[in-house]
Amino acid sequence: MHSFEDLSAEFSARFLTQHFPTHPASLYEPANYFLGIGGKRIRPVLCLMGNELFGDIDPDAWHLAASIELFHNFTLIHDDIMDKAPLRRGKPTVHEKYGASTALLTGDVMMVVAYDYLSKIQAQHIRPIMHIYNQTAREVCEGQQLDMDFESMDRVDLSAYQQMIGLKTSVLLAASLRIGAILGGAGLGNQQHLYDFGKNLGLAFQVQDDYLDAFGDPAKFGKQVGGDIVAGKKTFLLIKTLEVATEAQHREINDLKKADDAGKIKGMLRIFKACGVDAWARELKEQYMQTAYQHLEDIAVLARRKEPLQQLAAFLVQREY
Amino acid sequence: MHSFEDLSAEFSARFLTQHFPTHPASLYEPANYFLGIGGKRIRPVLCLMGNELFGDIDPDAWHLAASIELFHNFTLIHDDIMDKAPLRRGKPTVHEKYGASTALLTGDVMMVVAYDYLSKIQAQHIRPIMHIYNQTAREVCEGQQLDMDFESMDRVDLSAYQQMIGLKTSVLLAASLRIGAILGGAGLGNQQHLYDFGKNLGLAFQVQDDYLDAFGDPAKFGKQVGGDIVAGKKTFLLIKTLEVATEAQHREINDLKKADDAGKIKGMLRIFKACGVDAWARELKEQYMQTAYQHLEDIAVLARRKEPLQQLAAFLVQREY
Repeated sequence: MHSFEDLSAEFSARFLTQHFPTHPASLYEPANYFLGIGGKRIRPVLCLMGNELFGDIDPDAWHLAASIELFHNFTLIHDDIMDKAPLRRGKPTVHEKYGASTALLTGDVMMVVAYDYLSKIQAQHIRPIMHIYNQTAREVCEGQQLDMDFESMDRVDLSAYQQMIGLKTSVLLAASLRIGAILGGAGLGNQQHLYDFGKNLGLAFQVQDDYLDAFGDPAKFGKQVGGDIVAGKKTFLLIKTLEVATEAQHREINDLKKADDAGKIKGMLRIFKACGVDAWARELKEQYMQTAYQHLEDIAVLARRKEPLQQLAAFLVQREY
Repeated sequence: MHSFEDLSAEFSARFLTQHFPTHPASLYEPANYFLGIGGKRIRPVLCLMGNELFGDIDPDAWHLAASIELFHNFTLIHDDIMDKAPLRRGKPTVHEKYGASTALLTGDVMMVVAYDYLSKIQAQHIRPIMHIYNQTAREVCEGQQLDMDFESMDRVDLSAYQQMIGLKTSVLLAASLRIGAILGGAGLGNQQHLYDFGKNLGLAFQVQDDYLDAFGDPAKFGKQVGGDIVAGKKTFLLIKTLEVATEAQHREINDLKKADDAGKIKGMLRIFKACGVDAWARELKEQYMQTAYQHLEDIAVLARRKEPLQQLAAFLVQREY
């Protein structure tokens, strides 16, 4: 059994390989650039942990972990184009540095290479794993599309928003765990519990992310508090606020659109608190965590095998930065 | 044994199914729209013909044919974004009708569904077929990138151009045949000959396409002659002309950039003829065809099994429209 940190270090070392041919450099240099920006490599490590929950790490798990990380990076490159994001982890995005057309193709070819790693695993596992992989990939696209649809809507239903977040961010975490579990020899029931653990953990993480953007300690959070408010981004906090606000508060929110950044942040934080969505968000996160832990509990393996996942979950959703 | 027309009719009928979920419609409606525009379905039928060259059509060939056609359509949707093309087969392109972000995602999800069809085939075939499929998908991306690189270059070497065209258009034709051949039980030698037949056929087809744009009979060609010239597109004819033109002709080509469309077409056609690239292109196409037929000849199956492919090749590269 290994901790998240151990597996992360080993994965990162192995992932520092040449994933692409050298020619044409105009296509592959951007791909290498983006992978070089780094990242927390959470999803591939979840795949390895899902495997190790049930048995020794299968050599194929490293192929699948690489595949998942490449797939994730492909979605980031394309999302950045759609969101017109200038920066990713403080560095210029691929479309910013190399142009939108090259970024589009770089994402495409990264996805192909992701599938190529998947094809390297033993034949008996390919079909069940590809089934989950493809379904998840479809769902991630659906989540991104819904997110864009929601951006142009005045009001979004909370349950629709939760579903979107689940598709856009949680299913890939959940599927990473499950794919590892298949390699570890888990039965369908255990696979499903592990998947649901990952899905709820992902939702808890997103609630916390939205919460910290508004109420986090800037010194620990590492970025300016209120970024989502200034960007007018739909978050758990805003969606819930729009659901419960009085008519007067709705007018106030509308008026704040004309305020400067500092005014927007100050005003929205006051309304969030008046509507009680700070406490609501803490409670919602707690509910997702309880559901996640219950699914982890229900997995039929020795308790000590679950410890690394418990530690990771506690670390991910109790961070204050 | 079936003719191209028979297989095309049967494939088209089977392909008229629901490939995507219904929700979110904002993602899948554009995908259905694009497939509804139609197309010649050449690649999936080549897959079926590659199979039938060696044996009865395997039920999995229909999955692979659908996969290949979806993959091809994904590349068209993304290429249209990069090329800023307003129309495809006379209809608005996906990005024109639904916006670039949705077109990007629609392409992505179509590629995922293409891989999902691939995952449905019998386990023993998945790895060898995915290997070729992924390599081809990578090469198609490389070809598109090189094409974009070349657009911004003053001069392109003929051999580099041939390589780009091979990647961008021919490898998918060749791989479609080869993937079918694998299902038909072909050995490696026969697979390679069939692949090379497809690759050279694709190159011959492209030379002919470029030739007809300049020298075709407008009544038979179905579109305005000289479209490539007006668009300043790099073609076999232009690349070769730039290689052999005198200094005076180079100056003339440069001066033509300021001419109106009719003047450009008239002037470039005169230079093409003066440089003899019309005869050169006919000869080049003939060479590709001879190479293609030689590879078909070298495949170790009864001659009558090759007839549908011979007929198709003759049809494709002797068209005057």
